[in-house]
Amino acid sequence: MIRDARIYLDYNATAPLRPEARAAMVEAMDVVGNPSSVHAEGRAARALMEKARARLAAALGAEGADIIFTSGASEAAALACAGRGLQAGGVEHDAVAAWVEPTLPVDARGGVVVDDPACSVLQLANSETGVVQGLPRGLAVCDMTQAFGKLPLAFNWTGAQMALVSAHKLGGPKGIGALVMCRGTDLAARIRGGGQEMGRRAGTENIIGIAGFGAAAEAAVRDIDEGVWARVEKIRDILEKAIEAGANKTIFVGKGARRLPNTSCFSTPGWKGETQVMQMDLAGFAVSAGSACSSGKLRESRVLRAMGFDAVTAGSAIRVSLGPQTREDDVLRFAEAWLEKEAKFRARAA
Amino acid sequence: MIRDARIYLDYNATAPLRPEARAAMVEAMDVVGNPSSVHAEGRAARALMEKARARLAAALGAEGADIIFTSGASEAAALACAGRGLQAGGVEHDAVAAWVEPTLPVDARGGVVVDDPACSVLQLANSETGVVQGLPRGLAVCDMTQAFGKLPLAFNWTGAQMALVSAHKLGGPKGIGALVMCRGTDLAARIRGGGQEMGRRAGTENIIGIAGFGAAAEAAVRDIDEGVWARVEKIRDILEKAIEAGANKTIFVGKGARRLPNTSCFSTPGWKGETQVMQMDLAGFAVSAGSACSSGKLRESRVLRAMGFDAVTAGSAIRVSLGPQTREDDVLRFAEAWLEKEAKFRARAA
Repeated sequence: MIRDARIYLDYNATAPLRPEARAAMVEAMDVVGNPSSVHAEGRAARALMEKARARLAAALGAEGADIIFTSGASEAAALACAGRGLQAGGVEHDAVAAWVEPTLPVDARGGVVVDDPACSVLQLANSETGVVQGLPRGLAVCDMTQAFGKLPLAFNWTGAQMALVSAHKLGGPKGIGALVMCRGTDLAARIRGGGQEMGRRAGTENIIGIAGFGAAAEAAVRDIDEGVWARVEKIRDILEKAIEAGANKTIFVGKGARRLPNTSCFSTPGWKGETQVMQMDLAGFAVSAGSACSSGKLRESRVLRAMGFDAVTAGSAIRVSLGPQTREDDVLRFAEAWLEKEAKFRARAA
Repeated sequence: MIRDARIYLDYNATAPLRPEARAAMVEAMDVVGNPSSVHAEGRAARALMEKARARLAAALGAEGADIIFTSGASEAAALACAGRGLQAGGVEHDAVAAWVEPTLPVDARGGVVVDDPACSVLQLANSETGVVQGLPRGLAVCDMTQAFGKLPLAFNWTGAQMALVSAHKLGGPKGIGALVMCRGTDLAARIRGGGQEMGRRAGTENIIGIAGFGAAAEAAVRDIDEGVWARVEKIRDILEKAIEAGANKTIFVGKGARRLPNTSCFSTPGWKGETQVMQMDLAGFAVSAGSACSSGKLRESRVLRAMGFDAVTAGSAIRVSLGPQTREDDVLRFAEAWLEKEAKFRARAA
């Protein structure tokens, strides 16, 4: 059990599987049919998938919208953004940044200035800093991947044409996500052949993953309603106070902005983020430097650079991200261990 | 339990989850980390994934090749074929046909004549008829989806540049597949952002599905080695003899060619395939007409048309596909029920 041996503070990279998702997935393992088959076994598989789609739509406030299951938010981003010449700020996730022009200005608190929403992609929350954007109405694409399951949200209220979400950020399995679209939006499939997912995405569906996503999304929204993240936010603030009290050179990124309740990004200029991550790993804590999505490659944060931080500061940040299971004691132990290393760093630097 | 109540004879559409895959997936549910994270939890997830990749490589005879996990064979087909102007016969699966020129001749037994392997895509076995191709050396892409797990095969012996495979056809979960490539083959990612899968396919990996794929592939190859499919082939032949003895207008498609051991495709001209599927479904048997991959849309088989059958014959075929669990009694009960309906069809047609 990680719970006893180690402390996991990297929920924004991926969250542990929720028990509700696990149960739904194990149940789905008994469903034999291909949802495209017309016989009873096929219809049973389809029914399970459509039940999960309805649960996801309800959790997303996207009733009446089209929900296209994909292999994750990265695939959804490619489907939504490729070849459309959309604009974005420099703080978007790599999976979005790969397809857009990074022309929109970003302010020092991480806010993106969108002048033409219908031609723009904007994240609801940033994975590294937790900074939450005030969404202009009518975005072409809203990346809700990191916000979904942590903030109350409703796709239908945003006026966005499309949104991206992922299961594993909210306690569903890795490898399943969705593109949410206003009904009837025209979209060319990138995986072709079969007519699955309303012709927008061919291929036999990941039934077990879809079942897990539906269950996890429902459970995540229940957590929000029950105030779980308000408690997490208090623990995050306790962490930041402890760090701040012991390390006066440390900068809290995005602290003046509205942030996700679980995310703290802080930079100690000159102490490399990747060094901190490795030192904390050895001390028993899982945290990250920048995004986890680049196969272990660590480097200065593009997000912090876009916010105007210099290269040294952007290369000296770590992200601590909490989850519903995180206890006050966990972050206090983290702060103690981190401050011990920080004191050594200062002694070396002096 | 489908076992008692109904008889599932649609293994080519999708196979029930193998117990080995289920166990590996349930075990993988406890792995918390993101395989791109550098901390202990991330490294544990990566180790699990690399173990599954090695198992898959061994099962495929693809040691030393690059194995890129995808969301299924359809995604692998898009990745391998899109924009390359490859040629193929008219018998390829829709997921391949979407990206190629159907210019290669197909003979009456389903054989495809390939003149330039390096510019061609060819399936190892056809999903509808079970017809197995003699592979020319050095294909651009070999679609092994339907053959893998039913026939002994080795990617490294084919001289092919790439191959496509899928987990759920051999008892792994739906929604996971792979593109196998000669090491170092140049390929532009279609899902971009992170550096996962050696830069060929971004997105957090479907760890649970990948674990299931590795375990299922290993178990499937063990079945082949143990002669399971030779037994299945005998049962398939018993089925065909029973059908043949009672229905003298029925044509067995591809019977003169080398076929998968589990597949029987037969047409009873004038009796629509979709009608047969529905009648057999009501009688307690799951079979299919054509491919299951078009979201319930049934129509005349493009594969049979490519083999030279007329539209009526191509629209009157069904596919019965057996699995390791199929018993002789299952197919005899199927034949009895089918022949009863066939007699009624003949009486109506007379």
